[in-house]
Amino acid sequence: MAEFDLIARILARAGVRADVALGIGDDGALLVPPAGQQLVAVCDTLNAGVHFLPDADPADIGWKSLAVNLSDLAAMGATPSWALLSLSLPQADADFVERFMQGFSALADESQIALVGGDTTHGSLSVGVTALGFVPAGMAMTRGGARPGDAVYVSGTLGDAAAALRLQQSVDGAAGVSPALLARLNRPTPRVTLGQALRGVANAAIDISDGLLADLAHVARASGVGIELQAGALPISKALSALASATQRVRWQATGGDDYELAFTLPPERVPALEGLGVTCIGRVVAGEGVRLRDGTGESVVFEQAGWEHFTGATQ
Amino acid sequence: MAEFDLIARILARAGVRADVALGIGDDGALLVPPAGQQLVAVCDTLNAGVHFLPDADPADIGWKSLAVNLSDLAAMGATPSWALLSLSLPQADADFVERFMQGFSALADESQIALVGGDTTHGSLSVGVTALGFVPAGMAMTRGGARPGDAVYVSGTLGDAAAALRLQQSVDGAAGVSPALLARLNRPTPRVTLGQALRGVANAAIDISDGLLADLAHVARASGVGIELQAGALPISKALSALASATQRVRWQATGGDDYELAFTLPPERVPALEGLGVTCIGRVVAGEGVRLRDGTGESVVFEQAGWEHFTGATQ
Repeated sequence: MAEFDLIARILARAGVRADVALGIGDDGALLVPPAGQQLVAVCDTLNAGVHFLPDADPADIGWKSLAVNLSDLAAMGATPSWALLSLSLPQADADFVERFMQGFSALADESQIALVGGDTTHGSLSVGVTALGFVPAGMAMTRGGARPGDAVYVSGTLGDAAAALRLQQSVDGAAGVSPALLARLNRPTPRVTLGQALRGVANAAIDISDGLLADLAHVARASGVGIELQAGALPISKALSALASATQRVRWQATGGDDYELAFTLPPERVPALEGLGVTCIGRVVAGEGVRLRDGTGESVVFEQAGWEHFTGATQ
Repeated sequence: MAEFDLIARILARAGVRADVALGIGDDGALLVPPAGQQLVAVCDTLNAGVHFLPDADPADIGWKSLAVNLSDLAAMGATPSWALLSLSLPQADADFVERFMQGFSALADESQIALVGGDTTHGSLSVGVTALGFVPAGMAMTRGGARPGDAVYVSGTLGDAAAALRLQQSVDGAAGVSPALLARLNRPTPRVTLGQALRGVANAAIDISDGLLADLAHVARASGVGIELQAGALPISKALSALASATQRVRWQATGGDDYELAFTLPPERVPALEGLGVTCIGRVVAGEGVRLRDGTGESVVFEQAGWEHFTGATQ
């Protein structure tokens, strides 16, 4: 099985967009940017044994490798357009590529993002995706726009993926974890539509990949503000509510990561614009610095580690 | 050493361009495409033990990881603008990153391409680069434009990198290889200026990464033509001329790969436009299919393998 056969399988699921003048198959892709918009470019790589288990379902790997990038586009408020895929494989495994592309293209089609290029190489199993999208000029959300007095919101629920990963690593394996939690780990939903709806509404936004506290610390630092969060306000799924101790649940919610929800801030007067968007107020922006999580009595809840450390691999 | 310290070292050498509204440090980069141009997007990944030796100089790895991508942009006739870098490292090695970025940014600065995003992750040593550039709408060169009667040209000289790699793998190691050949292997020069000069001149173009015959076979297939090459016309460096047998030298030139020269075709009446560009006529486009290399007597020169196979790792 040569590289070109693998590329044919990828090509078959590349997707179609009118703004792709030339897709996979030449030295580069030829693309037509929309007039008057800014280009948003993101890239994230997932490595076997670090970001997913070596025996993970290839379709899940395909989905998630695109999802984590779409989540970054969502945090900027961008509309996705094109993706490039760099796939390193220990051997030219056509079945793996077929399954991988099933998962990748399921999300790509849903998100109307076309795969326009990339490469397949020999190496340890690794998936690098670059995703491109557009925002109207000057309308992108960044980490730096939070202002004291803003309300802090988050989409969806928190901690599900972290709980699923931890439970899966226990004696019963994946069979012992509820499908609802597993889906949150393996098939996260990037909040692309929400991100676009927040343009002109949110002052600052970030996606939660490393853990709520760690990611909001980036917002606090970039904005030159402090953030106060209420532990009791963190949104929790039914599946997670039924598990573990209250302390452990809050730990997963606040530091577990892999949520791919959006956290964002906005002035109180714009809160009515959030109606129907499935988001929850979890705190407020204050003068100062850092992120503090408080329990119902106002005491600070402190964890040894605020989130995922990429090189120690540790999280709580 | 945490990820953020590595990012600081990368950030210090990211480069500056006026069309970067927001660079490294947020969820994504925010970029301003020039009006009326098409975006060209390429990505190529280099893995340790496959594309470079595990003990290679990190500065050379940095240079080459960008060079192979700039070479793809050059083949499309694009002007480079922005790059994203995905760096997987076995450990958070600040010295490696520092040296890597020295090589990467030396070429990036020369090519006026700014590093605008990317990620660093834990994993086997692997470097993924996405490069973006622009061409005036409708002016990109592709593999599909070659026409019977076109002359076939190549830039620079061929076979140097393949010879250097093979000699380096012999008993004497790198010490036994001339610096001129080693530089061609470790610090290839992407033909970015040439690529732009060929817009509106060449009918088809490709960069030579897998080997002249293998890469021109893509042009022949995409264009629906045949290509006839003269072995005696293949440009050779002084350093390579002094080495090995004539047969071995032609083998390296025709199938060795890693040259990162441009091969292109153009109608004979446009040949005067090539004056001063350092390119050599090596054959012509004919009706039919496939690529044939002929010696001085007109006999076909046939190799077991036309070029680099990504998953068998074999070349001649």
